[in-house]
Amino acid sequence: MTIGDIGEGATLARIFPLLPASRRTLLGPGDDCAVVTVPDGRVSVTTDLMIEGPDFRIGLSTGYDIGWKACATNLADIAAMGATPTSLVVGLAAPPSTTVAFLEDIARGFHDAATALAPGCGVVGGDLSTAPVVMLAVTALGEFDGTEPVTRSGATIGNRVAVAGSLGDAKRGLDILFDRAVAPDGTVDPVAVAEAWASHPTEVAAQLRPEPPIAAGRSAALAGATAMLDISDGLVLDARRIATASNVAIDFDLAAVGDIDSLTGGEDHAMLACFPVNATIPPEFRVIGRVAPGSGVMVDGVLFEGRGGWDPLADYSSASNQ
Amino acid sequence: MTIGDIGEGATLARIFPLLPASRRTLLGPGDDCAVVTVPDGRVSVTTDLMIEGPDFRIGLSTGYDIGWKACATNLADIAAMGATPTSLVVGLAAPPSTTVAFLEDIARGFHDAATALAPGCGVVGGDLSTAPVVMLAVTALGEFDGTEPVTRSGATIGNRVAVAGSLGDAKRGLDILFDRAVAPDGTVDPVAVAEAWASHPTEVAAQLRPEPPIAAGRSAALAGATAMLDISDGLVLDARRIATASNVAIDFDLAAVGDIDSLTGGEDHAMLACFPVNATIPPEFRVIGRVAPGSGVMVDGVLFEGRGGWDPLADYSSASNQ
Repeated sequence: MTIGDIGEGATLARIFPLLPASRRTLLGPGDDCAVVTVPDGRVSVTTDLMIEGPDFRIGLSTGYDIGWKACATNLADIAAMGATPTSLVVGLAAPPSTTVAFLEDIARGFHDAATALAPGCGVVGGDLSTAPVVMLAVTALGEFDGTEPVTRSGATIGNRVAVAGSLGDAKRGLDILFDRAVAPDGTVDPVAVAEAWASHPTEVAAQLRPEPPIAAGRSAALAGATAMLDISDGLVLDARRIATASNVAIDFDLAAVGDIDSLTGGEDHAMLACFPVNATIPPEFRVIGRVAPGSGVMVDGVLFEGRGGWDPLADYSSASNQ
Repeated sequence: MTIGDIGEGATLARIFPLLPASRRTLLGPGDDCAVVTVPDGRVSVTTDLMIEGPDFRIGLSTGYDIGWKACATNLADIAAMGATPTSLVVGLAAPPSTTVAFLEDIARGFHDAATALAPGCGVVGGDLSTAPVVMLAVTALGEFDGTEPVTRSGATIGNRVAVAGSLGDAKRGLDILFDRAVAPDGTVDPVAVAEAWASHPTEVAAQLRPEPPIAAGRSAALAGATAMLDISDGLVLDARRIATASNVAIDFDLAAVGDIDSLTGGEDHAMLACFPVNATIPPEFRVIGRVAPGSGVMVDGVLFEGRGGWDPLADYSSASNQ
């Protein structure tokens, strides 16, 4: 049974009961808008597209994985401001030949990610349409409960730089999947995907079903973090964003960071935060460097020039992991 | 020059200065999230996908038209709750071969629609990616400033039913464009599009560059509207939604409504509202019916069974206006 067979109304009727509810809902799905409470009068908002091709491959990812990751990555952007995610709206487009079961699987992944990573955060509305590929457009809202937003620009010299969450596993997982399960013409071998899950569960899960440390973002804000972001394009590239916005340098201790994948691999969705020397750093974080005078990113005191990260407009090719 | 040539960062640097600013911005684009103030602690949120194919054709619509309509239709959903639009986030995906000029044109349409229809509302964030077709995912936020959200479920027997904005023009405009400018194989004749604009400016503009009466939504809320929605799928279909949600019937006066296109044509983005008999109906609205006992939609006292509206999953075909 496809979504083209049963149409928009019947598809929505199947999907909505599977989605997580928000504790901040005044008015949920079914009207022109949802209405959400924002207790302290400030709402954080972020939006991300997740598109079949540049962002995922069906076969490497199940519908459940796609829903999970779309939810988790948006929650991470809210957490990286020091906010608590409260609600999500989801635009979903897919070819009419897509099965209803596949969309239900996406909804279940969404549900389980929100429930596991940000209890109380739920889907309050959405839109459903058709497109040549599967694509999700997720917008997340968050609340601050009295603290100030933690931006990229507040790092000061002497701050300790700390990270919560794993570094490099997502990149290693992607490499494993492409090495073993994607042919040169882009076709996916489902048996090899299953084998990759079995042999490297941590790395494959970090890539396909990431678990960003959502609560750590809020903990960092409460502990006085001066700057923070979600590492989506690789530690170095994202640290450079803090360095540039704050007009400082960031110097990493390579032994604390780990290896080269940890420095440059993307899609970690770990929280990178800067803390004053006298702050009590929350237990989810480990110190991996410090804020120094100067500009750019250094590793053990030496300027790191590597690029890291990728550009979806310039770099995407269907037959590689770039 | 294409977006694939210059990449994400350079494309965003070209687009962002063209976008409208929001008066509610605490923190604008460039961090993990934007932060927006919500003075009375309640935010309305709506999201819509606009996808090349089911929602627009390049050639019929310019980039400017696409940006304008994506903005205007989301503003209308906010207005239909009795709220004031304050901010928008925009996900945009397009093939790498898309010109930067086309995306700039979309941004200008977005700017001009927000400025004309909801001054003070602006774009606070977004995402840019690649897809086989052009698609926009817009999420709009609104504020209530102390009034209650106007839902679909509050209509009571005896209420007057009124509409602000045009009915039927958008459908007539679509018919004119497809009759004259779209060949059976789906190709668009640009000269015929220009001629349609010249001969039927009201109808073509209603379809390609709609001007929903955004301020009328807020006026209706302040005047005590009991139920309201944005007419997106046709007057009858959307009125039936109010009737069902409110457990009443709605009886239209055909002479006041106009003709059959006004009853069933979609994409009007007019505001349909119900008012108590003793309310002072705002001047943007004209009375076209009343709330009656029973269920469903009637025209001059006779139950109207016609469907109206369309289903993007079940009905879309690339060579017709459905």
